[in-house]
Amino acid sequence: MEIVVDAFGGDYSPQETVKGALRALDIKKDFTVVLTGDKSVLSEMVGDNARVKIIDAPDVITNDDVPTDAVRNKPNSSLIAAIDYLNANEDAKGLVSTGSTGAVLTASVLLTRRIKGINRPALAPVLPTVKGDKKVILIDCGANVEPKALNLFQFAQMGAAYAKTMGIHYPRIGLLSNGTEDKKGNTLNKEAFSLLKESKLNFAGNIEAREILSGEYDVIVSDGFSGNIALKSCEGTAVSMFSLIKDGIMQGGIRAKLGFLLLKPVFKKIKKTMDYNDNGGAVLLGLNKIIVKGHGASKEKAVCNTVLQTIDLVNSNVIESITECMNNG
Amino acid sequence: MEIVVDAFGGDYSPQETVKGALRALDIKKDFTVVLTGDKSVLSEMVGDNARVKIIDAPDVITNDDVPTDAVRNKPNSSLIAAIDYLNANEDAKGLVSTGSTGAVLTASVLLTRRIKGINRPALAPVLPTVKGDKKVILIDCGANVEPKALNLFQFAQMGAAYAKTMGIHYPRIGLLSNGTEDKKGNTLNKEAFSLLKESKLNFAGNIEAREILSGEYDVIVSDGFSGNIALKSCEGTAVSMFSLIKDGIMQGGIRAKLGFLLLKPVFKKIKKTMDYNDNGGAVLLGLNKIIVKGHGASKEKAVCNTVLQTIDLVNSNVIESITECMNNG
Repeated sequence: MEIVVDAFGGDYSPQETVKGALRALDIKKDFTVVLTGDKSVLSEMVGDNARVKIIDAPDVITNDDVPTDAVRNKPNSSLIAAIDYLNANEDAKGLVSTGSTGAVLTASVLLTRRIKGINRPALAPVLPTVKGDKKVILIDCGANVEPKALNLFQFAQMGAAYAKTMGIHYPRIGLLSNGTEDKKGNTLNKEAFSLLKESKLNFAGNIEAREILSGEYDVIVSDGFSGNIALKSCEGTAVSMFSLIKDGIMQGGIRAKLGFLLLKPVFKKIKKTMDYNDNGGAVLLGLNKIIVKGHGASKEKAVCNTVLQTIDLVNSNVIESITECMNNG
Repeated sequence: MEIVVDAFGGDYSPQETVKGALRALDIKKDFTVVLTGDKSVLSEMVGDNARVKIIDAPDVITNDDVPTDAVRNKPNSSLIAAIDYLNANEDAKGLVSTGSTGAVLTASVLLTRRIKGINRPALAPVLPTVKGDKKVILIDCGANVEPKALNLFQFAQMGAAYAKTMGIHYPRIGLLSNGTEDKKGNTLNKEAFSLLKESKLNFAGNIEAREILSGEYDVIVSDGFSGNIALKSCEGTAVSMFSLIKDGIMQGGIRAKLGFLLLKPVFKKIKKTMDYNDNGGAVLLGLNKIIVKGHGASKEKAVCNTVLQTIDLVNSNVIESITECMNNG
């Protein structure tokens, strides 16, 4: 199996991206990596490695590029070369990019074939919850800023199929809204509510954003705009809390510093739970290949985890699971 | 000055609501309270108190009521009686309710006169940030699920006027979006972006939800649906983090428990910073009276703080500040 890694475009690309990909190769033996980007730079970094192929694509798409323009005008960019390679090669099963979210989503959706029946692919990160190992899928987190109700319904189907590959047989689905009552929500939500209510899915109704990390749901469905806001609010609050704790300890004298030393294992565990470096990237569901968007600020460890996660996603047969769901309703 | 308190409708009403109102009377001497609700119940709780007036309104609007129906069909409810009293009495300057958010918003907007020029009132809680005493106003958090761009623009104006009453002379305004680039956002956001960009306001552009608690902004503008999701995501994550810390300490043996004892003052301070019980309710801006929606789960202390906050809001002349802004652009 080949995993294509867009070696440029991330905040710490290409150094950390390449290091992360190489680290993943050390950990797992049954795959090879295809790096896309400026060949002279990459060759020097990689050296002689039989498990790494380099595709020369010297252009880079940045956050300043307008995604649709970039897809059209930068065919020799590391991102477009990566997607082209993915689509052209049977053995290339997955792709990782830490580049501009907008560009990754736009290019993936425009250039990659969708699973039959899926109108719009959706970005589906897996978030931690307060219930230990229990995770929750938040779909969509930014691929569809203005979807229709049918799209939201399909996000629920895809999320459920994804949850099933994680061993959850009858995934519990919540619709992200501004209240738990059936009549809550904007026009889009109300329409999606009706579709979900009438379906065979295990639909638990509207949920408030307060419940996202509660561990009471397996899949939370949202439009991409609100889902993105929910995701980043959770992330930002977790970072803020750590920052407040740190400030408190710095200002709390010897007593607080001693307390911190004693609680260090607890904080470490929580940080690991809440940290995107450990939670990997977000998969774009609905395409016939696995494309994972890693965090823009990913360093070596995060890139490595995202590559390993991509292999796991390929092996989990999530694409087959969604295809089956679309065939059988 | 009279502060009207809807004594029913909250999760812990009427007991905690009444206790909270009485506690506020003990703390501040220059106001009186008007309680609305079942007179026989309230009279027994209050006893003989010259600073409390009771308005009999035995009906209760609950979360199960459809707000618009409830406003029409339950004129003798504690909420509607409270709003009617507020509007009919010059000396009644503010209102507190911990009842159904939907009903409070709907009834307030339908029954209370708006400030001239304001098309839609908006719910504007004040959130803590990581920068010490610095706060941020998030407007709107649920009053307008589907506003127009002009409404968002007016939310920015109202938020800025509110921030000015807190001593911030040139409030920095961010537009909540799914990315920081100028072209990010849905149709509504893009239109609002243009209006804000062309205005005299100190508009800092689109912001991601990750930045809400960063302390870099004074006012964050959003539609009510997304703002509600942002607010509750932040709230839910803070609660989840405390829950994870607690679990970690419980499972961490004597070492962790000792660490907790030493860090208790730090945790207490952070909890106070992040806790709605200390941060008060959310004011509905744009009306010619101060209406504050307290948290549904408010107990005595939270109700007391919300009553005191309402008095502060009246004294801050935020209504006059918004009126002036609407007159002078």
